[in-house]
Formats: sequence, structure tokens, C-alpha cells
Amino acid sequence: MKVGIVGSSGYSGAELVRILSRHPDVELAAVTSRQLAGQAASSVFPFLRERMEELVFTGSNVEEMAGSDIDLYFLALPHGVAYEFAPKLLEAGKDVVDLSADFRLSNPETYREFYADHPAPQLLEKAHYILPELTDAKSLKDLDLIASPGCYPTSILIPLIPLVKEGLLDLESIIINSVSGVSGAGKKLAETYLFCERNESVKAYGIPKHRHLSEIEEQLSSASGSPVVVQFTPHLVPMNRGIASTIVVDPKADAPLQEAFQVWEKYYGPKPFVSILPTGQTPDTVHVVGSNRVDMSVTEDPRTNRWIITSCIDNLLKGASGQAVQIMNLKYGFDESAGLNP
Amino acid sequence: MKVGIVGSSGYSGAELVRILSRHPDVELAAVTSRQLAGQAASSVFPFLRERMEELVFTGSNVEEMAGSDIDLYFLALPHGVAYEFAPKLLEAGKDVVDLSADFRLSNPETYREFYADHPAPQLLEKAHYILPELTDAKSLKDLDLIASPGCYPTSILIPLIPLVKEGLLDLESIIINSVSGVSGAGKKLAETYLFCERNESVKAYGIPKHRHLSEIEEQLSSASGSPVVVQFTPHLVPMNRGIASTIVVDPKADAPLQEAFQVWEKYYGPKPFVSILPTGQTPDTVHVVGSNRVDMSVTEDPRTNRWIITSCIDNLLKGASGQAVQIMNLKYGFDESAGLNP
Amino acid sequence: MKVGIVGSSGYSGAELVRILSRHPDVELAAVTSRQLAGQAASSVFPFLRERMEELVFTGSNVEEMAGSDIDLYFLALPHGVAYEFAPKLLEAGKDVVDLSADFRLSNPETYREFYADHPAPQLLEKAHYILPELTDAKSLKDLDLIASPGCYPTSILIPLIPLVKEGLLDLESIIINSVSGVSGAGKKLAETYLFCERNESVKAYGIPKHRHLSEIEEQLSSASGSPVVVQFTPHLVPMNRGIASTIVVDPKADAPLQEAFQVWEKYYGPKPFVSILPTGQTPDTVHVVGSNRVDMSVTEDPRTNRWIITSCIDNLLKGASGQAVQIMNLKYGFDESAGLNP
Amino acid sequence: MKVGIVGSSGYSGAELVRILSRHPDVELAAVTSRQLAGQAASSVFPFLRERMEELVFTGSNVEEMAGSDIDLYFLALPHGVAYEFAPKLLEAGKDVVDLSADFRLSNPETYREFYADHPAPQLLEKAHYILPELTDAKSLKDLDLIASPGCYPTSILIPLIPLVKEGLLDLESIIINSVSGVSGAGKKLAETYLFCERNESVKAYGIPKHRHLSEIEEQLSSASGSPVVVQFTPHLVPMNRGIASTIVVDPKADAPLQEAFQVWEKYYGPKPFVSILPTGQTPDTVHVVGSNRVDMSVTEDPRTNRWIITSCIDNLLKGASGQAVQIMNLKYGFDESAGLNP
Repeated sequence: MKVGIVGSSGYSGAELVRILSRHPDVELAAVTSRQLAGQAASSVFPFLRERMEELVFTGSNVEEMAGSDIDLYFLALPHGVAYEFAPKLLEAGKDVVDLSADFRLSNPETYREFYADHPAPQLLEKAHYILPELTDAKSLKDLDLIASPGCYPTSILIPLIPLVKEGLLDLESIIINSVSGVSGAGKKLAETYLFCERNESVKAYGIPKHRHLSEIEEQLSSASGSPVVVQFTPHLVPMNRGIASTIVVDPKADAPLQEAFQVWEKYYGPKPFVSILPTGQTPDTVHVVGSNRVDMSVTEDPRTNRWIITSCIDNLLKGASGQAVQIMNLKYGFDESAGLNP
Repeated sequence: MKVGIVGSSGYSGAELVRILSRHPDVELAAVTSRQLAGQAASSVFPFLRERMEELVFTGSNVEEMAGSDIDLYFLALPHGVAYEFAPKLLEAGKDVVDLSADFRLSNPETYREFYADHPAPQLLEKAHYILPELTDAKSLKDLDLIASPGCYPTSILIPLIPLVKEGLLDLESIIINSVSGVSGAGKKLAETYLFCERNESVKAYGIPKHRHLSEIEEQLSSASGSPVVVQFTPHLVPMNRGIASTIVVDPKADAPLQEAFQVWEKYYGPKPFVSILPTGQTPDTVHVVGSNRVDMSVTEDPRTNRWIITSCIDNLLKGASGQAVQIMNLKYGFDESAGLNP
Repeated sequence: MKVGIVGSSGYSGAELVRILSRHPDVELAAVTSRQLAGQAASSVFPFLRERMEELVFTGSNVEEMAGSDIDLYFLALPHGVAYEFAPKLLEAGKDVVDLSADFRLSNPETYREFYADHPAPQLLEKAHYILPELTDAKSLKDLDLIASPGCYPTSILIPLIPLVKEGLLDLESIIINSVSGVSGAGKKLAETYLFCERNESVKAYGIPKHRHLSEIEEQLSSASGSPVVVQFTPHLVPMNRGIASTIVVDPKADAPLQEAFQVWEKYYGPKPFVSILPTGQTPDTVHVVGSNRVDMSVTEDPRTNRWIITSCIDNLLKGASGQAVQIMNLKYGFDESAGLNP
Repeated sequence: MKVGIVGSSGYSGAELVRILSRHPDVELAAVTSRQLAGQAASSVFPFLRERMEELVFTGSNVEEMAGSDIDLYFLALPHGVAYEFAPKLLEAGKDVVDLSADFRLSNPETYREFYADHPAPQLLEKAHYILPELTDAKSLKDLDLIASPGCYPTSILIPLIPLVKEGLLDLESIIINSVSGVSGAGKKLAETYLFCERNESVKAYGIPKHRHLSEIEEQLSSASGSPVVVQFTPHLVPMNRGIASTIVVDPKADAPLQEAFQVWEKYYGPKPFVSILPTGQTPDTVHVVGSNRVDMSVTEDPRTNRWIITSCIDNLLKGASGQAVQIMNLKYGFDESAGLNP
């Protein structure tokens, strides 16, 4: 099976190249990048030297992509761009896994509120948002347009959705603080992302209405069956990769902490990429960087009767490219962990 | 006027040396350190070369300190050690500003709950906890044992106390997330503080009952007149200095955001070390590192009706040594900013 | 006395603002920046809040500068721009201290070889390159166009010039490796200076002919009286500030190491900003960051008979803005250390 | 085939666990650590969760190791400790790959000069120092005690040995500067390795006689057939992993730069872990971190007629654990790249 990557010059694209070039079940047959077109991929990705010397960046001509013999395209593009590529690829019978926000929301109104007018709202009905741990793998087989979840949302939804679904939480009480490494901002050339601006610096941003709220709330609402509104404050910290989320919630009056662990165990027990730490331990981003894992735990504060949920992911892997490959693995019947580090 | 520093080898002690060696109104006449006794201070602090070549670390002999002609001692010692020095110094008529937790709590029960049995509970009655912006400078003149506030508490109490005092907040709703640079842990030789363990790593710790909770809650309770219990989750991030606190609160039903700014302006308007940013801006630790300032702001989330308060300090300055010097400045009638950067 | 800063939005400009706004002997009366014109300086530099609220960025209109009552302008501009401002300011009787490379070389041919055609070669004759420790302060009084030295060159010339002047070194043997924090590159918006590109990364660059070679070699040649050619390899390392230079040289056959220290002592003994560490100690950038000091030492390798000279500076202070203020202090008869940290 | 790791709690040990737990041709059957004995390996190495839950740290009882069914032991211990384990393991017919300095030198006098009296000098004759790219893989089959090279030496010897062997260099001219991430110091609990001491800091150390000189010079002398003495100055920089070496040499009078590339091509052309960059490009540590590659290049300075060789490795992989596994792969006839990233 042949796969291609559209938008290979960003950080998520680079991770896709790294994973797919070593994946045992697929051949990485195309990498596109407007700015790198014509260059050998191995000149940009030294790990391809000696192995894939022949792979060359092509421009982003969607007609050529549609006419190729590639089965699956990953779109690693900014939001507002991915939607230009998806329709033609789908028409040509290709499968598409999109890593942008363009197909993550089911409601074009929400997209407009948080992003802009959606340029192809009809596609939102065709698209499916897939958190692989919360989806029946068999149902993926026939989906041809899949939205891979965002980075902050993955770190938040994996721990929260089961607790919400099982009715353990007071839905008005959810307060989330997240900190992210700088690669979450991509390679945007803005002064604020220069080394000397972010090094030795921490700040909250995106208050009170970061774009990822739309995705978090739509999924939590869907899980609970009623609208959920949460508080979400992201922060940038001086490291390359990793997201740590700290979520404070009020459990429903009679829910003992043990029940949270039981619910998690029920949903994630045999899952290779969710690791539940005992209460009292807190996950550390350094343990998940380079892996596709979510590490998470929950502690009760007997003084406030609140639960403090902590979770960590690598924002470029479980929060982007690793999860997209995990989706591919499940959809095509490969080993769920193929090409990915636990 | 002559001042001395007891415990000069830690990060707070080093900042005190830096500030006091350049202070226009005092002479730094003694620096003590058990481990550095006998060494020239300029061999440890290169900025003293060419200026204070004669200053030599002495051991920590409290009798000698008591017999010296030094007027004021700063104690930059771990908690559970400072109390050994204070009584003799006070008896000898010295003034003491303590940077540890030993004299910050008025209730020995609380000290026992969060630290250990207090070894000198009778001193707690003599000691005064001073947040300089919230104290009448004239009242400091006659205090001889002053507890300088802790780092996390300073970043939290400066924004919160006025709002609590003026009754703007639902006191059960206070949820605090803080991130701190690693110098907050001092020079403790533990694997977790090695460069490679903290670099590229973020994690929550001290859940659910970090020691600084005792100080935060005692002060908020005192401000409100009734017991206040808060949620507080600290995190370590890979930078040397700086604390950023993000505080989510429910305002009382009818409090408009504007009132928060009015209250802050009333309490802090003419204060040189509190800087209030307009709503929508968020403080960045990088702007306060090296200064004695608190930068803070507050934003309303119209979707949740909550306020998100953000604040930043340099944990070693406003959160420790800078604040201790600010207290000295006010107590002795020096310019409040003498020796300190705004 | 009134001073102004042309080009206040870069890192060197910001340091000048910081130093001059607190300087005891001058008034910072103008800050210019094309991109920030019209904004309050305190909105960009929070340390000006509460103190210099009235200072506003102006555009870079050289006619207005020439007509102002400002006595001295610091030019903190990229090379190839500073020369546009100097002539009109000099004509209007202003003094100019330039921090760029535009006036550092005496030979326009060298400027062309390393930069480009010099647009105002006649100014090179008027300009004076001043390393303050190696200049008689009295001679500065009448200079109206002074070039402040570059960052790498300062870390290299301070230790080398005395040894070269006194004939202690084999001039063909000088091999220099330097490492610099990223602020040396200024705020250039290029992918290579993004946080995630420089964090956790080290590389040599500018091989074999970095621009600063022109300045290093011209000064060493002038010191020795004959052309000197050196090997110079700079590297970028993931920190904000600081330069460490390691210089390997062959001493002349009979020169004992002690003589190096004697020569340094003779040139720098009473100088406030040069600190000579005993052999066996190596300077650490962390000790000079925030100060205007050079820390330096030299060790002999008995196995190779070479000397290894090590030096450290803060590239934005002794390597740029601090040194420029030191020059001003000496020229106008202020205390050499006024406004600067030792 | 079963393998074990003696000393699994350091950084090199952790990398060995990571690589060997995923290696397609071997079973990681034992991990020892005095301090972690009895703990589940997956509690320390989260990537083992869900996969190797049964692996438990054992103490370092060499009798038990000798009696086990493990074929090959990797020793990831400090120098001066490894020699205690090797003899009994060899007697019991085990193979040993040692990552310490204990078996790297052939001459016990040199070991004494740079380390201490060698406690088992007779073993030095049995041991073989193996740089895999410079060894005939067939010759490894019968070696039972192999010393894996050190980190700085690997980054230096890989580029230099071929040039020295082919007589291209003036052997008295070799001047090496290296910078290393902090993991090179292991997990030593010393103040100098605390986060706040190394962050934002660069310094030279180990001048003029770092221990790795002994290994570098012995190998270069062996390659040239006559004693070689080099200048070597290492530096610590604030990053976790990676070494960059910059080597300045005088080529023999008539050697054109092209010949350096031809020699490298001859020695390393088909080698999977040596990547030769064209002149003018300089390797960057960030490209080799996580891989077992050496990236290297060389540039001529026409002004000085010197060559500037630059090289980068991941100090924990090609400089330690990756190289040790590469040696195993070649010795046992596995694919040279098995378990390793190119």
C-alpha cells in the first residue's frame, strides 16, 4: 500500500515522514511541499539518507495526486487549506486522513465562530472525527475522510470522555489548564516564536476562547448528550514537544475516586497507547515525548472534594502524526502499534 | 546601617548578596554559610570582584552574630532551620527578616499539618507576615521579626486579596494553577533537579496539598474573615526563574469585570511594583525576571461567567529576596525601590 | 545631558533602553523605531511603567534627530543602515556611538570583502574603533563618531591584544572557537532562529570566513604591527545570552605562562570590567550574563606547549550595549561603571 | 538470543533498555541496578508498560549473572566498576560489551595517568576496542570482551582516523573543540549538574587533559603508527543530548580538500551510520539526536590553508548505547541497523 503526505515541511509533516518511512506495512511514495518542491527529501530529512535517496518533494498539484497510484493521503496543512485538497482526492477514490481543524467539527456554525466561514461545509457531513481509543476499529474500514484530533483536545478528551459518558462528573465544573511545548505553534515566522522570545518564558495565551475549545466542547457534548461548556487556559512553556493538562472537576456527589479508575480501565484496559498511573503519581511530558502514549492519572482532594486529573502527550505524535498513523493502522487492519513507539 | 545574610549559598541568598552589595542605603557587612566559611565572597560571586574583595563567608555562629554591630539580619535558610537563629538575634536587639516558612503561619497547628511540629511556637505570636503592598509602611517600624512571603503565595495573594477583601469573589470557587522555574526548588541535590531531568519536561507536583497552601489559605481567610479553601496545583517547567499563576474564579453574581480593575487600582495604583495589564493581555514571566514587579491582569469569559486572573513574578525577587529588601526599605524609611528594579 | 537611541526594537536597543533609563548621569530623551513609532515605550518595555510613561517611540526621521536638543545618539541598527544616519547627526554637532559594523573597519576594501561596498567610505577615516580598556579615556573627549566593538571580537581581543602587543604569541598559531547564545542573531525572522530549531541544537556556522574575522584581524594586525590571520569558528548554542571563546595559541618559545598573567595584570589591573581568573579555572557565561564584565583565564598544556585562553562575556552587554555605555561614560567623564553592573 | 544489561539506571543504560526491548533479534532478559533492585522495569521505563510488565530489576550479583542463560551482557557502569563484573562473566562463557573506559586502553600506564591504577591490567590484553565502521565485522565473531568507544572520541575518531591512516594530516596540528549536552555527565548528583546551574550557561572544562584524550590519542597513534598528541577542549552546553566537534588541522602540503572526501568515501561509502555532508554544510546535533549516525563535513580555509572538520553525534547513541548495539549486531550477524535509527 502506498501513502503520500501533503504538506511535509512542517513539524507534523516531518513526524509523518519519519514514521511512514519506517512503517512495516506501507510505502511512503510521495511527499509534497510548495516551498521544497524539487529538493531531495533526504536533504531535508537526514534520516532518509542511505535509505530513500530517490524520494523528492513534489509541488502540491492536486490533479497529479488524484491521478497517482497512492491509496491514502495524509494532509498536514494549516486549517483553511486542507479543504482544498480533500474533495478531488476523495473523488479519485483516495482515502484521506486530515490533521488540520478543517474537518473536526460537525457544525459549520461552530467552525465560523472559532475559525472563519467554512469553505466546504458539505464535507463536514462526510468527515468523521476519530479518537482511535474511543472508536470501534471495524467502523473505520469504510470511512474515506477522517479528521485526526488536535493536540490539546487529545490530552483532554482521552481522560474526560469516559468519565463524562458514565455520568461521573458535574459537567459545569470542568476547568482545564494546559501547557504546551512550542512546536505546537508550527514553523510560523513570528517574533513571538523566536528562540530568545520563548526561552526562559511562560505565559498564558488564547484567553478565554482558544480555537481548540470548539473541538473539546463538541466532543464532550456528544459524549454527555447535552451541551458542555468548559474553562480552558493554554500556556506556552520553553520546550520543544509535549503537552501537560491539569483538569479540575467536581465529581457527582456519590462518585468515589475508585470509580474513575474503573471506568478508565473499562475503556482503555487493553489499549496499547493509554497508560493509567496510580493516584498520587503525576505524568511527566518527558516520558511520553517520542511515544504515541497518553499517560494519565487522577487524585482526589479530600479538602475540596474535587478530582485533579493530569495527563501528558507528545503533541506531535499522539497529538498529531502518531495518532493519524494509529488511525491508518486500525482502518487498514495493521497492528495498531505498527511504526509507533508505545 | 549594616546588614547581614544568614545562609548565603542558596539561590535566594545569592540574590540578597547581589541586591544588598549594590544597595545605596546599607552596607552588606556579613555573609554566612556553613559550607563556604572562610572563602572570599568574591570567589563565589564574581560581581563582588574589584568591589568587595574583603568580604569573607563566616560560619553560622549565632553568638557571634548576636555580638556584632549589624542591625538587621536576613535569614535565607530552609524551613525548620531559621527558627534556631531568630531568638538569639532578637534578644540581642537585632531586627530579623526571615525568608523561610518558619514564621509565616500564625497557627502552629497549620504548621504541623503542612510541615512538622513547630519547634518554637511562641515565636509565631511575635512574628508578622508582611506583604508590603498590603501593609501600612509606618506599622513596620517597630516590628523586629518579619516573615517575608513565599513565591507561589506572592503571585496569588497580590491579585486575590483585594478582590476577596472587597467581597467580589465566590470564595469556594478559587482554582489556581501555577508554573514555576526550577530555581524554586533551591539547590537541593536530588536526581529530579538534574539538568537532563527537568529540561524538556513539564509535570504537576505536590498534588493535592502543596505546603504553600497553608500560607495562601491563612492569608485569604484573614482577608475574607472566614475560612477559605482553594485548589492549588503547581507545576515545574524548564526555565531558571519565574512563576506564572492562572487563577479561575466565579465573581459574585453582580460583579462586573470593571470592578476588579477598580479594586486593584485602589489598592495598587501608586505602588511601584504592581503593574496591572489591560484585560486581554496576559503577563509573561520574561518581563518580570530580574525585576521586583508583579504583572497581572484579568479576563472575563462570557461563556462561563468566570474570571481568569493571570499573574507573573520572578520567584527569587518578588517571590523571595527582592520582596525581603522591599520590606527593609519600607521599615527603615528608604525609598521603596532602593536597590530593586521596577 | 540628553541621549537618544536609534533602533530601539532589537535586543541591543532594548538593553540600551534598560541601561540608559536608569543611568544616573543622562536623560533618555528619545527612542526611535520604524515599526513601533507612536507606541508608548512602556508598552514594549514594562520596566518603564510607572517611571517613564511619557516616552514614546518616534519614527526614524534623521532631520528631526539633527534638530533636537539631544547630545548623543546611540545607533543600534543593522550594518548597512547606520551609515545613513551618522553624517547628518555629526553635521548637526551631535556625538554618535554606533553599535553596528559600519564604522568598525578602517579599510573599505576589507569592508567590501566581508560585507559589501561601503556606502560612505569617507566616514571610515572620521570614525574611531574603541575598546575602552585599551584606550586612553582622555583621547575620547573629542571623538564624535565612535564604533563600539562587536560581540565575538570583544571576547577575543580583550585577552589577545595585550599578549600580541607584548610579543608573547606566535602570530600564525591563533585558533579560536566561540559559542554564542541566540540573541547574537538579533530578531531576524528566519526559520533557523525559531525556538524549536535552536533548542536542543548546536552547530558551527560561518565557516571559514565569518564577518567578525575582519574586525578581529584588523585589530590584531594593528596591535602587532604586521598582518595577522586567525582561524575562527563560531557556533550557536541554545541559550539566550553569552559568548564563550576558547583560543589556542603557541606562545613564543621562551614565554612562561606567568608572563601572560603579568601582561594582563599590567593592562587590566585596575579595570572594573576585566576579571582575570587563576589558571585552572575556566570562566562560565552564567557569571557574566547581566554584567559588563569579561571573565578570562589561560592554562598551559605541558604536553603540547600551547596556551588555552578562555573568555566569557554577555554578548548584549560587554559585547554591545554595555560597552557602548562604558564608552559614553569615559568620553563624558562619568564614572566608568555608571549604569553598568560589574 | 538473550541479553542482559548491568547498570540500567543511568542514561546509557536507559537507552540500552529502550533499544534492546524493541530489538528484533534478541530478548532483553535481565536488567540490573543496585538501587532499583526489586522494582518493575516498567515503573521506571514507561515504554515497557503493556509490553514487558514482567521484567524486574535485579541486584548486581555477578554469580547469578554467570549462572544465567543469558548470552551477552552489556556493562553500562562507571569506569572502575565494570572490571569487577567482566572476569566472572567471561569465565562463565558469556560475551561482554563494556561501555565504560575500563577496557578501552591497551596500556595500563596510560590508564593510570588519566584514571587510576588499573585494577585488572591483565584483562586489557583480552579486550578489544571496536569502532564498528573501522573493523572487519568477521573479526568480531570470536571476541568475548569488547570495549565500546567513548562519546567525544567517537565524534573525533570517525572523521580523523581515515585521514591519519592515509597520511593526509600534519599530526602535530590537530586542535579539537567539542561541545556536549549535559547527559554526558550521567546522573551524577553534583551541584554543577543541577538544572539552574547548566541552563543558560556554557563553559570549557577538563583543560588541558580531559580523560578522553587517552583514548583519542591511543587510537590516532595506532592509526598513524607513531605517537600523536592533540589539543582537546570540551565544553558543556545547555541541552540534553548531542556532541558537536570542530577539528582544525593542517593538511600535508600537497593534499587537496577533495582527497579528504575521497578517503572518507573509501572508508565509509556503504556504511549506514556515517553521513558525509558536502563542504560548506555543517552538521547540526539536532539532526543526529535519536539516531546512531555520525554527520560530518570538512571545509578548507584558503586564507590559512587549514581544514575545518565538523562532526555531530548523539552522545548516548553513537557515543554509547547505539554503538554498543551496532557492535552486537555485527558480531552476531544481525542486520547492522537492527534496532537502530539511521
